[in-house]
Amino acid sequence: MNIVIIGGVAAGAKAASKIRRLLPNSKVSIYTDDTHVSYSSCGIPYYIQGNFEDYHSLLVRSVEEFKDMGIDVYLESKVIKILPQHQQILVCSNNNAYLVEYDKLIIATGARAYLPTIHNYTNFDNVFTVRKIEDAINIRQKMLSSNHATILGSGYIGIEMLEAFVKNGLKVTVVEKNEKIMPIFDDDMSTIIQNRLENLEGYEFEFLTNEVVSEFTGKTSVESVKTLSGKEFATDFVVICAGVVPNVEIAKEAGIVIGQTGAIKVNKLMQTSIENIYACGDCAEKKHLVSGKNVWIPLGSTANKEGRCAAMNAAGIFDQFEGVLGSAVTRCLNTTMSMTGLTEKQAIAVGFNPISVRIDKTDRVGYMPDADEIYLKVIADKVTGLLLGGQAVGAIGADKRINALTSSLLAHMTVEEFANNDFTYSPPYSPTIDPLLNAMMILRSKLHN
Amino acid sequence: MNIVIIGGVAAGAKAASKIRRLLPNSKVSIYTDDTHVSYSSCGIPYYIQGNFEDYHSLLVRSVEEFKDMGIDVYLESKVIKILPQHQQILVCSNNNAYLVEYDKLIIATGARAYLPTIHNYTNFDNVFTVRKIEDAINIRQKMLSSNHATILGSGYIGIEMLEAFVKNGLKVTVVEKNEKIMPIFDDDMSTIIQNRLENLEGYEFEFLTNEVVSEFTGKTSVESVKTLSGKEFATDFVVICAGVVPNVEIAKEAGIVIGQTGAIKVNKLMQTSIENIYACGDCAEKKHLVSGKNVWIPLGSTANKEGRCAAMNAAGIFDQFEGVLGSAVTRCLNTTMSMTGLTEKQAIAVGFNPISVRIDKTDRVGYMPDADEIYLKVIADKVTGLLLGGQAVGAIGADKRINALTSSLLAHMTVEEFANNDFTYSPPYSPTIDPLLNAMMILRSKLHN
Repeated sequence: MNIVIIGGVAAGAKAASKIRRLLPNSKVSIYTDDTHVSYSSCGIPYYIQGNFEDYHSLLVRSVEEFKDMGIDVYLESKVIKILPQHQQILVCSNNNAYLVEYDKLIIATGARAYLPTIHNYTNFDNVFTVRKIEDAINIRQKMLSSNHATILGSGYIGIEMLEAFVKNGLKVTVVEKNEKIMPIFDDDMSTIIQNRLENLEGYEFEFLTNEVVSEFTGKTSVESVKTLSGKEFATDFVVICAGVVPNVEIAKEAGIVIGQTGAIKVNKLMQTSIENIYACGDCAEKKHLVSGKNVWIPLGSTANKEGRCAAMNAAGIFDQFEGVLGSAVTRCLNTTMSMTGLTEKQAIAVGFNPISVRIDKTDRVGYMPDADEIYLKVIADKVTGLLLGGQAVGAIGADKRINALTSSLLAHMTVEEFANNDFTYSPPYSPTIDPLLNAMMILRSKLHN
Repeated sequence: MNIVIIGGVAAGAKAASKIRRLLPNSKVSIYTDDTHVSYSSCGIPYYIQGNFEDYHSLLVRSVEEFKDMGIDVYLESKVIKILPQHQQILVCSNNNAYLVEYDKLIIATGARAYLPTIHNYTNFDNVFTVRKIEDAINIRQKMLSSNHATILGSGYIGIEMLEAFVKNGLKVTVVEKNEKIMPIFDDDMSTIIQNRLENLEGYEFEFLTNEVVSEFTGKTSVESVKTLSGKEFATDFVVICAGVVPNVEIAKEAGIVIGQTGAIKVNKLMQTSIENIYACGDCAEKKHLVSGKNVWIPLGSTANKEGRCAAMNAAGIFDQFEGVLGSAVTRCLNTTMSMTGLTEKQAIAVGFNPISVRIDKTDRVGYMPDADEIYLKVIADKVTGLLLGGQAVGAIGADKRINALTSSLLAHMTVEEFANNDFTYSPPYSPTIDPLLNAMMILRSKLHN
């Protein structure tokens, strides 16, 4: 069996090593246009921040280690065409194109940064995106000799870059086109995030919300940034964190069905619409386990699981990836922000009739040292009482209340059922009644009235 | 309506304030032999440690605050008899006994320290138990002028006292009659706890396991401790943390049915076997939601919920307390220890055929600063794949993996179902695949083979 994998970051690297274990006599190859394989792109902001010194820490497995496992990795080898009728791919490397045959093909081409349409910006040498190892090295180097950074976008990556830069003493301007920062959260939670961050002393940054960059000025480098509303400010460099788009072009061209989300449509076995071709990771659609809808939520943990599932099925061993809850977490300075399931706005969009409760509690008993705030929002369907999701913002440990919700979403529990929960309690870890349970008890009362 | 509550720490205090809100025109009284009411006994070890200076922080509500709410609190008023046929209690206070009538009686007498039978020990002025505010004040005072402490028992309270004492520079000897410390955990987890603690530098303490105190020597104070195996060591004071026993004597004498666990038998409405008498908190039995058996697991969070439920029903509003999972957590120095559901030994005892997996992972991605170990054990039934429980030991955050298990136990999920979980991921919070999910995936493979 000859298995070819396109892409080798999270899903692709996982698929390769899984297949190698399942089918020791197969031929397994990874083709990637990247200069590195099998790395933690989620760790890039922490390398830039300086949480660890050597970027090699981000590399999970080197080309040599793959070689030792019997997996051939072809770096800087761009797959430019899939030829399903011949079970071949066309690879371009060093200005040389060649065909590679496959019995099973796994597409793990991932996603790339979304680039807003700003006049001429690609001409500048100090505009970065955050995806690859080179990005990490280049941004860190630039940061170390700069005083001011501009970040476009305040989602997960944007907010992580903000932390990295201000912790290194830079002034930062974050430009967000939405009305609120971290727009994936419900507006009330985004407001809390922004307030917590802006009330923090010792760092210099500002959020320009409801604001779009209209122009970069400068010669070879961006020297100042202009916004649609007429603001202008000088900057040393720009990082674009305005979202990502799935790399689906070669799949689409090969006739593989693309879902309504714009990512590759797959079934629970990670099979695409064309035989012997699988897709997994950030390039593939997922099923949302609460709404039942197809969604595109590209996350490293999901990529890992999908890579495993694609490998199992490509190797002939039945396995199903059920879907995602959209669980995510990040940190910015003093603030953890975490969510699972549907937000209130998402719940409305898919046809639920949501009811929610938001509470503000301490993360441990108030008399304990370092007790910190935790803002917790839980959302249920008004008609059925079915739990739909939750969001937590605040102290380190806010994420823990979100992970305590995921199983209940999986099990389609109601608020009433969840309110029987028995969480651990000790003064350094939570109040007597954990904030999550507390919120759920209030939501139960609200549902009864 | 005239409601009388015996005991006012957690369940009693909660019941009183809940009833007051539900029935604004009722008469609500608390009788307690204690000198304080409504306090956080779980916080006592942290007061002793010096995490906060004023013991008043432990007091949730004062007698005056209860008075303002229209609740009468009678301190140092011991209820010595319940007369169900007359709906009266006999109270003894200041060497004066008197009868009090009730329409509804809520027994929240709690538990007391179990006192091992050691010759003559009650004669000594430096032997303490850890239940009440006076204990907190006395132990802290004694600790501040001492060099060596002896702790009998290494359960939750024992291990919390150990942290308090060594953090204040004392040398400590912990005597544990079982083979392992923290004997509520499975032996393998207890061994990990002990190893982690003993490998920690900067503190002086030792665990004498499989060892029983046979004698205290000294005149008015214990000066040295002798053990059954012949050891003898000098000490400045002794704290007995050898477990607790429910205060059920007056209930039993009144003819109220006591369960096989030794605590007061109640139904889901917290009703005892005698009409108009409820019991809640540490004096009452609970139903274990995994085993379905009656158990006695006295914990502050449960007391709070049961107090609320008893109040609802006493007020004529139907409410049910479903039961407990035995979820608990504590910290000793660098080590969090947490559990929910059944341990492997408990699972065997109630007739399951358990299978388990224990893994050793980092609590966040290994390249992040302060990454710490987390040892996680998950337990399922071999026949059905039903999840039975979990234990986590290690880094702060180990407890978070346990709280992520409770809903799945409530929902009677199988390992197969749980393995579809979608936990949050970001390098500062967890590895790409959370240790809990990782353990569950391995357990799933083990179940399939």
